[in-house]
Amino acid sequence: MNKMTGIKLLKNGSLTSAKGFLASGMFCGIKRVSKKYDISLVVSEKAATAAGVFTVNRAKAWPVYLAIKNLKNAKHMAILGTSGNANCLNGLTGQAAAWTCLKAAADELGVKTEEVLIAQTGIIGMRYPVHCVERAMPELVKSLSTEGGHAAARGILTTDKRTKEIGVSFTLGSKKVTIGAAAKGAGMVHPYMATMLCFITTDAAISKPLLHKSLKTAVQTTFNAIAIDNDMSTNDCAFVLANGLAGNREIKKENADYKKFSAALEFLLKEVAVGLVEDGEGVKHVCHITVKNAKSDAEAAKAARQVGNSMLFKTMVTGEDPNWGRIIAAVGASQIQFNPQKFSVAIGGVPIVREGVVRFSNRPKAKKVMANSHFDVTVDLHYGKGSSTFVTSDLTHEYVSINGAYS
Amino acid sequence: MNKMTGIKLLKNGSLTSAKGFLASGMFCGIKRVSKKYDISLVVSEKAATAAGVFTVNRAKAWPVYLAIKNLKNAKHMAILGTSGNANCLNGLTGQAAAWTCLKAAADELGVKTEEVLIAQTGIIGMRYPVHCVERAMPELVKSLSTEGGHAAARGILTTDKRTKEIGVSFTLGSKKVTIGAAAKGAGMVHPYMATMLCFITTDAAISKPLLHKSLKTAVQTTFNAIAIDNDMSTNDCAFVLANGLAGNREIKKENADYKKFSAALEFLLKEVAVGLVEDGEGVKHVCHITVKNAKSDAEAAKAARQVGNSMLFKTMVTGEDPNWGRIIAAVGASQIQFNPQKFSVAIGGVPIVREGVVRFSNRPKAKKVMANSHFDVTVDLHYGKGSSTFVTSDLTHEYVSINGAYS
Repeated sequence: MNKMTGIKLLKNGSLTSAKGFLASGMFCGIKRVSKKYDISLVVSEKAATAAGVFTVNRAKAWPVYLAIKNLKNAKHMAILGTSGNANCLNGLTGQAAAWTCLKAAADELGVKTEEVLIAQTGIIGMRYPVHCVERAMPELVKSLSTEGGHAAARGILTTDKRTKEIGVSFTLGSKKVTIGAAAKGAGMVHPYMATMLCFITTDAAISKPLLHKSLKTAVQTTFNAIAIDNDMSTNDCAFVLANGLAGNREIKKENADYKKFSAALEFLLKEVAVGLVEDGEGVKHVCHITVKNAKSDAEAAKAARQVGNSMLFKTMVTGEDPNWGRIIAAVGASQIQFNPQKFSVAIGGVPIVREGVVRFSNRPKAKKVMANSHFDVTVDLHYGKGSSTFVTSDLTHEYVSINGAYS
Repeated sequence: MNKMTGIKLLKNGSLTSAKGFLASGMFCGIKRVSKKYDISLVVSEKAATAAGVFTVNRAKAWPVYLAIKNLKNAKHMAILGTSGNANCLNGLTGQAAAWTCLKAAADELGVKTEEVLIAQTGIIGMRYPVHCVERAMPELVKSLSTEGGHAAARGILTTDKRTKEIGVSFTLGSKKVTIGAAAKGAGMVHPYMATMLCFITTDAAISKPLLHKSLKTAVQTTFNAIAIDNDMSTNDCAFVLANGLAGNREIKKENADYKKFSAALEFLLKEVAVGLVEDGEGVKHVCHITVKNAKSDAEAAKAARQVGNSMLFKTMVTGEDPNWGRIIAAVGASQIQFNPQKFSVAIGGVPIVREGVVRFSNRPKAKKVMANSHFDVTVDLHYGKGSSTFVTSDLTHEYVSINGAYS
């Protein structure tokens, strides 16, 4: 329990940590070579309020269009996720396939199609094996359980090495509220949007507009502030279902309860986002880049993103090499306002540039910090009061190998 | 000789191909480990008209500020280039160092300081060894010759494996006009600007405003349409000196002569730009990406740039893997207008996507094309009439190795 925020990180947290959620996951036949889990279902016992954010890619996959449409409905019962095939760039048969998957889940659950959300992820441009999903649906629904969160987390993975799961609890009034989540994402992670797949469940009672606002806000500083490569997926979405079973007074205004809920959601998504970077393709180092004292938060975010996406920065992290030149070049390339003669850089608290002048003697110390799997880079622009953090990975030989031989 | 354009590519072209230019290059002590050439001088016999374009990075190196200032002068006699130290992010001593280098060259040549242009490239954030340049200046000036172009081309290299030199000739009226150039650049090449260093000499007579316009225009479709990595240098500049010794009637209007000169300059810079990509750090494949039938040329350029900068696209080139999904994802990420159900992709003329549907059977043929060191990717959006080409490289293990251990 964090005493200041009142947010408790649950042991073994998952999609089924919150009250009234069932889930399941299994192998249905999409990943026919690896035979790994490739389908997941998350169901709420009680009709839930839902919100979602989606990729801003102009080439969206079919399930994204379908989920955007269904999200307009007032209440939702379930999320269906599949992995191994993105159901994107495969003609109109892909559109029919997304619909058939969704309908199979709705029919088997005995709910309306518009009460189900859908997400699919995997290789782009392949015919979607819809019969696998139809055939598996009875067993998938039969195996739904309050312990099924972990299985559901497995069913949405692609090149991920591990599941990304989390649960937190806090109180609203006298009621204990829980939020759980599972996410996937290991490549094509450069979210100017909600990225990757992330399913979130909560027993909080909250209105649909505020649930959406809370999700959208949390995504800005979490999923939208990380990168593994600079590629934007066609399939990304994050969904949250809130079923109200915690019994808290429904959040309808931006009051203290809303703030508490939103803080917990942001905390949760930040953990998930960092987990995504940690498990990124070929990743050996995770680097938290903070730009502070910029003209504004937006300018700080722009500079931090530019550093985090620089291939030269990412390879210097790989090589554990405190190369100040690449940092200033990236900050300058971001086109923000600052004085290049008056900025400071520290790695893990070790100053390597102070007010525009390099501290050569600190190089060995900084190099030592960079040998850690996680470290911070702080760029102080001494210019204004804006601040922002971006989380990035290194760019390794393994990344090149994995992505030179993917399809 | 290209019969249509009248442009003749010279054998062994260089900075001293045009009339009235002398050059020299040598080792002066900046690259004290490798002892490779690290200083170059290009001098015009007759006062020349000059133009230049520069990095738009907000953190510019000291020589860039100095060159921008000096370029305001009406006439110029020389360009001084040094390599091995970028003279950037090294405090006010760097500013003094750039000035001292420039003054040493002007004094030794017996010209005014404002008649000399300067460019420096190399590692950022190191003290500039100005005494090396001062000490070498008498010998550098003494060895100036009309055969010195190749030596000068060597003196500006950093991690380049070879010099990038070229010369072309064409006629204006009855006069033969020649343009020569040398460039460097192997990493940190992602020019939203004039990138890298490029020195250009010509004996054409042309007014200063038109020389500038011609250079700026040519740079858009050449240096600004290539990428090796996504990093923007602090030191990039391209200079052209035009001394009028060809004896053509001075170009003062955007007439037929202007068009002919500009076409030759663009041809020359395109060759140099492709040469830069070919010699990029770790580069094994050069890929020309053309987006056609976009809403406008600008939208086509945006999409082609996004594809060319995608790490997943670059690694699929490394792996010689025709992964259509990464191409559509990058086009969509560029936020341009198009219909994802109606676009076609061909690799070396082999269609892999036709009007939104993948041609699986063409995969082996496309894979074969990608085994070549140069190949084309054409994305046809069937949307408008805009077209643009961007040249990119693959992202290889060697790139990661070189840049994990640079400083």
